[in-house]
Amino acid sequence: MASYLITGTSQGLGLALTTKLLSLPASQVSHIFALTRSAPSPDLQKLLDAHSDRSTSVIASVTDGPAVAAAVKQVSSALGDKGLDVLINNAGAADANPGGMRSVKAEQMKELFELDVVGVQTVTAAFLPLLEKGMEKKIVNISTSLASISLAAHTHFAPTYAYKVSKAAVNMLTVQYSLDLKDQGFTVFALTPGWLKTKLGGVDYAHLTVEQGAGEVVRIVREATPEKNGKLLNIKVPGYKFGEIEAYDGGEIPW
Amino acid sequence: MASYLITGTSQGLGLALTTKLLSLPASQVSHIFALTRSAPSPDLQKLLDAHSDRSTSVIASVTDGPAVAAAVKQVSSALGDKGLDVLINNAGAADANPGGMRSVKAEQMKELFELDVVGVQTVTAAFLPLLEKGMEKKIVNISTSLASISLAAHTHFAPTYAYKVSKAAVNMLTVQYSLDLKDQGFTVFALTPGWLKTKLGGVDYAHLTVEQGAGEVVRIVREATPEKNGKLLNIKVPGYKFGEIEAYDGGEIPW
Repeated sequence: MASYLITGTSQGLGLALTTKLLSLPASQVSHIFALTRSAPSPDLQKLLDAHSDRSTSVIASVTDGPAVAAAVKQVSSALGDKGLDVLINNAGAADANPGGMRSVKAEQMKELFELDVVGVQTVTAAFLPLLEKGMEKKIVNISTSLASISLAAHTHFAPTYAYKVSKAAVNMLTVQYSLDLKDQGFTVFALTPGWLKTKLGGVDYAHLTVEQGAGEVVRIVREATPEKNGKLLNIKVPGYKFGEIEAYDGGEIPW
Repeated sequence: MASYLITGTSQGLGLALTTKLLSLPASQVSHIFALTRSAPSPDLQKLLDAHSDRSTSVIASVTDGPAVAAAVKQVSSALGDKGLDVLINNAGAADANPGGMRSVKAEQMKELFELDVVGVQTVTAAFLPLLEKGMEKKIVNISTSLASISLAAHTHFAPTYAYKVSKAAVNMLTVQYSLDLKDQGFTVFALTPGWLKTKLGGVDYAHLTVEQGAGEVVRIVREATPEKNGKLLNIKVPGYKFGEIEAYDGGEIPW
């Protein structure tokens, strides 16, 4: 029985994660706080309406410190004496720069860094006191195989240069939190949901449906124990490759 | 005989690199373009005056796109028909957040990312056409062992959280350039100069003098062949440790 806060839930993976978690019994998922930048999308609103006993809409841009602080107050008030059990930092965006790293504009790098990295920092730091009161103490940062510098030659086909740079930064941020919080029993990790047929992943070439990705993410998050602290985890879906390598082997992705 | 552009040369490692390179004969170092954010420091000015036949002051903030574009024009004009041989992205700053990752403020993260990552991007992208005309085709990004996610547990003592996050991002940026440019014969790599007694490194606890670091950096840059493309290199100075591990083993640092 765990409470979750998930960012970026209006569409894509965030919506699919919320859907998947709410399909589990209340004995496993007690409450979902579905954070969105603006009013929930119609799809999300419908989902929340169908599970109004254990879901709450929370509206805040992850890059807006005061709005995130207000979100903490709202969630804290809803939880009463309890803490928040699991935070899933899912909100994010990617770029497309087929002209290579040299073609990435400074403004685009800064915008993506703000959303993909500073957003994670803002939400995580703000919700940490509530997570410290939680039972599961899990912080999950949605990352990507593209964030692996070790695998960069295998994923060089993907022209998402600023995204790769930002997600490598998220990986370091994840590991810093894992080290800071491990003595408190936290499990802080990054994971890839796979290359998904979403707005971010692109529907034409991506490998997996968003439901496949969400299913694996939920499985990994629920199974994770403190031994996963500080790791970048992969989903397990056989049959796909990045260049020469198995794309989703269910193991750890090297940094 | 190679021409160099070095950023952040008014003080610290950048000044020491400029000093070291200008101590080599003109047969090895034909010209230094010493980039500074504002007017050169007195120490740098004195050095440039003493080597006015083969050094040039270039003033531009690495985060100011138009100023960097003007710097490219100035350097291009000075080089005439020739290209630029070596770019050393050295300008940077670090934070001190003893309160842990959670205490890092969004504004500080953004400021450091802009200087330490977007600055490298702005300078590199702008000077790339000149580097493509150069003979050595070397791009060197000053990084740090603290940027290694794999070694993060060993370097967790250093409260430079935003710096670690930004430098991990620089490492990814470095590798993206190395992949984009390898077929053109470029050697693009990151390297650590060691933990130096500078304003950035802190004079009280750091391991090495700035001259030691600069000497090793110059040696590694001059020796580097395309087989170093896409790597994070370490200096070689025995006798220092990060936690359990040898700090400066002269090898590759894992990502």
